[in-house]
Amino acid sequence: MRESKGSVGIVGLGLIGGSLGLDLRALGWSVQGLVHRTATAERALERGLVDAVSTDPLCLSACDLVILALPIPALLAPDPTLLKAIPRSAVVTDVGSVKQPVQEVWRSLHPRFVPSHPMAGTASAGVEAGQVGLFQGRPWIATPEDGTDPTAVEVVQKLAQELGSQWYTASAAQHDQAVALISHMPVLVSAALLRAAGDERDPEIRRLAQCLASSGFADSTRIGGGNPDLGVAMASSNSAAVLKALAAYRWSLEQLEDAVLRNNWQQLHLELQRTQELRPDYLEVSPSDAV
Amino acid sequence: MRESKGSVGIVGLGLIGGSLGLDLRALGWSVQGLVHRTATAERALERGLVDAVSTDPLCLSACDLVILALPIPALLAPDPTLLKAIPRSAVVTDVGSVKQPVQEVWRSLHPRFVPSHPMAGTASAGVEAGQVGLFQGRPWIATPEDGTDPTAVEVVQKLAQELGSQWYTASAAQHDQAVALISHMPVLVSAALLRAAGDERDPEIRRLAQCLASSGFADSTRIGGGNPDLGVAMASSNSAAVLKALAAYRWSLEQLEDAVLRNNWQQLHLELQRTQELRPDYLEVSPSDAV
Repeated sequence: MRESKGSVGIVGLGLIGGSLGLDLRALGWSVQGLVHRTATAERALERGLVDAVSTDPLCLSACDLVILALPIPALLAPDPTLLKAIPRSAVVTDVGSVKQPVQEVWRSLHPRFVPSHPMAGTASAGVEAGQVGLFQGRPWIATPEDGTDPTAVEVVQKLAQELGSQWYTASAAQHDQAVALISHMPVLVSAALLRAAGDERDPEIRRLAQCLASSGFADSTRIGGGNPDLGVAMASSNSAAVLKALAAYRWSLEQLEDAVLRNNWQQLHLELQRTQELRPDYLEVSPSDAV
Repeated sequence: MRESKGSVGIVGLGLIGGSLGLDLRALGWSVQGLVHRTATAERALERGLVDAVSTDPLCLSACDLVILALPIPALLAPDPTLLKAIPRSAVVTDVGSVKQPVQEVWRSLHPRFVPSHPMAGTASAGVEAGQVGLFQGRPWIATPEDGTDPTAVEVVQKLAQELGSQWYTASAAQHDQAVALISHMPVLVSAALLRAAGDERDPEIRRLAQCLASSGFADSTRIGGGNPDLGVAMASSNSAAVLKALAAYRWSLEQLEDAVLRNNWQQLHLELQRTQELRPDYLEVSPSDAV
């Protein structure tokens, strides 16, 4: 029998929760899952996402660490029976993509709460989505504030590093503005492309646009054609930062449009040269490249 | 010795010209290449893109069909010696992604000119880029006008279909507006995303945005971080249609921004649901799916 590193509770076994379960079990943790539905619990056991699973929050009573792998709306309005069941001595963290509202809710709910955000994902969701190695080489950012227990932060940092993630800390406000710029606002920018093409009044042009659309259009519209629930959760939980990012975006687009309007092709060339140079800074570095 | 279907001249042996050469040779055409530089000519022969190649336009004198696989600027200001060398009896077509300006220049230059646009591509360019089967299952659109020789159109249609392309015709104005919507304007929309992230004033947020950017941002910025020459060629040769598409785009983005501004999450959900439903209409149908 393997020696357990400790007992971790994972609340929610979707893409992030399930992937955490798979990796943490492999690393020697004893993993206790908590889900809503019996069918999900059964499937999670079949897939080996957890050592044990329950629909009763009391299953968390022996956990040293509890990871809230819940969607943002559930995270912001936590179930009172869940809150009661989490041991006061356990370290608690979340995986939400927005940190200020989570922090506002949770800082008074648990003394050892650490707001965190592993930046990993695929297009999949649900109990079938969890996969091995999802966090390997990906950023994991925590946003501790003055009242955050530093020993709890250390526990989460060690966990993230065990999973192969790159550890960062920042203020919640900076985190939320950064994700608005590179994740939340781009969803709206991408969706507006589809909306503009769909609104074209000439049916012949609309049909042609559909026929002629190539991989460039497919790539540009991928995040704008995704799950509407997710898009709304991002925009509604981070609306101030999203609006600020949209204002910056509109200004940028206007500079490019202005060059076209003035037939200033030299200026447009300079602009596009700059964006070509900027892009590599934003590309994921795979773990092997990072070495 | 194989029996030749006829002699085709290809002017320019980059991605499109080289790919045409490979496929047309395989289909039994005798392929004559015309390039600027001797080094390119040698490499084109080595790669088997052509049966014969020259840097002298006179090499086209025996061609039944001439395909101008030139960048837009070269196509709009054709070399007089090239013009003189193309037989008046040959069918002439181009592969430019903008059709109105090409038509305006070429309708008076050659009696059997057919404006056309095979919608195929990769990120590669130059004599090494040509590949087998590039046009298979992809749209090939012609924009004949009243004065266009219908027998010449038939020749180009047969050629496109031999290459496995799907044949469409439209007016040049409709074509140019459609490509502005799904190809040229999206380059600016995508570039503005990089510009907005790069303009962020807080260095910590800028650094975080770089670390946290994931595949979604990479996809959304791919076309905006591409070759500046290509972006400028598209915008400058199709500027009226690009500006019209940008106006439609700005309106669309404002509708989404307005929902965020008003905290109207029901409206934002409806909008994102619609864009999710729209997207499949714009995805490439692979040849096997199309059957």
